[in-house]
Amino acid sequence: MSKRLIKITIEYDGTGYVGWQVQPNGPTVQEEVEKALKMLTDEDIRVRSASRTDSGVHALGQVATFYTESSIPAEKFAHAITSRLPKDIAVRSSEEAPDGFDPRHGAKRKLYRYRIATGPIRPALERRYLWHVKWPVDTEEMIKAAAYFTGTHNFTSFSNQECNTEDSDNTRTIDRSELIVTGDRITYEIEGRSFLYNMVRNITGTLVDVGLGNLKAGDIPAIFEAKDRQKAGQGAPACGLCLMWIKYE
Amino acid sequence: MSKRLIKITIEYDGTGYVGWQVQPNGPTVQEEVEKALKMLTDEDIRVRSASRTDSGVHALGQVATFYTESSIPAEKFAHAITSRLPKDIAVRSSEEAPDGFDPRHGAKRKLYRYRIATGPIRPALERRYLWHVKWPVDTEEMIKAAAYFTGTHNFTSFSNQECNTEDSDNTRTIDRSELIVTGDRITYEIEGRSFLYNMVRNITGTLVDVGLGNLKAGDIPAIFEAKDRQKAGQGAPACGLCLMWIKYE
Repeated sequence: MSKRLIKITIEYDGTGYVGWQVQPNGPTVQEEVEKALKMLTDEDIRVRSASRTDSGVHALGQVATFYTESSIPAEKFAHAITSRLPKDIAVRSSEEAPDGFDPRHGAKRKLYRYRIATGPIRPALERRYLWHVKWPVDTEEMIKAAAYFTGTHNFTSFSNQECNTEDSDNTRTIDRSELIVTGDRITYEIEGRSFLYNMVRNITGTLVDVGLGNLKAGDIPAIFEAKDRQKAGQGAPACGLCLMWIKYE
Repeated sequence: MSKRLIKITIEYDGTGYVGWQVQPNGPTVQEEVEKALKMLTDEDIRVRSASRTDSGVHALGQVATFYTESSIPAEKFAHAITSRLPKDIAVRSSEEAPDGFDPRHGAKRKLYRYRIATGPIRPALERRYLWHVKWPVDTEEMIKAAAYFTGTHNFTSFSNQECNTEDSDNTRTIDRSELIVTGDRITYEIEGRSFLYNMVRNITGTLVDVGLGNLKAGDIPAIFEAKDRQKAGQGAPACGLCLMWIKYE
């Protein structure tokens, strides 16, 4: 039987995983999906994802592909894989992908959402999905700071990548950067085609440092200019971050 | 030192507990709070709550009181207790209550929220806070059914209490009963002064049975009339239910 390329959309609670990609130091989402595919098809299938989410980061709409010789109808994979996965991972949908479809390089836009709980007391409900910031934050100043990230910039100061020799490599275009405040909850949403390593967490941590008064919204242009990770704010913890969706052509 | 009455508002993820009230078959929220108070004050304190939530039910705004001889300022208890509690319980606020304040009988209004995820695939994120209903539901019919619960009714058919001999005991007034549909998520909110045992879960399960076509919205008046638990729909599982807030005078 000829091989088909299947595209799947995956939701996971990253709390119990050391990230998407297979590695020796703990369970990963990729290996759980590949184990489920082995159970289902008896094939040794390698799954390729759009984004290698870090340890503890969540996804509502991660996208991945795999080749299979199985005769299972493409749209039946979602339920069949999910029933073989642990409760913190689910395949939301599955379909046959056109030949040459690449989940990573073909992505046109992604939305990441970062959720923060403010106030002196840590949250108990939904604590796995929130960063608790216990000191008061100036949300007006944070909203102003968030607006600076829209557009095309060199994001070297917001990346933990070690090889930052060529500036052009660290230029990214952000289509939307918005902070939404609802009571003691803050949601930060950022949309773009691609992101540097740790970029969303470093931007979010910088926004919180602006909220705490450690930085000012007006400092953001100089931080871009510096191309120096040390000039930006702290990195936000993984638990608040979720990859919401990825769009293709 | 004279005893003061302290009122606390408690948030908890009920997943790991057999309910609020101390019992022999597993950990309870009450015993965790009492242990934290023992650590904090070295007193053997008994905590009295507004609602005895069942095994697996969550709370954002449970209210409870306790007497203490400690000299800790009333508003400092929230942080001091929370820092001695497991991560799935937090005391959001604390204050001195007037003499004679009773969290259970003094309650004027409570809001319960029940969250449902629909669709063929079970959710992975927030799965601890959702009931997954995998078959298609008619949400328009469910919205109509929810409206029948507003007002004063005999709720015998929606209670698991065994002693239902006197009708008058099972009469309750519901101030709001509303179903909110957002994509594949359904939120049911019900407000009233007090509720019978398992009443919110039995109403929610009945609404889902209406959505599934096992019952019709127009059947609700006859179900009230029957005063028979067998006439109503299924009971909804604990995980979707959350006690949101309790209001006093």
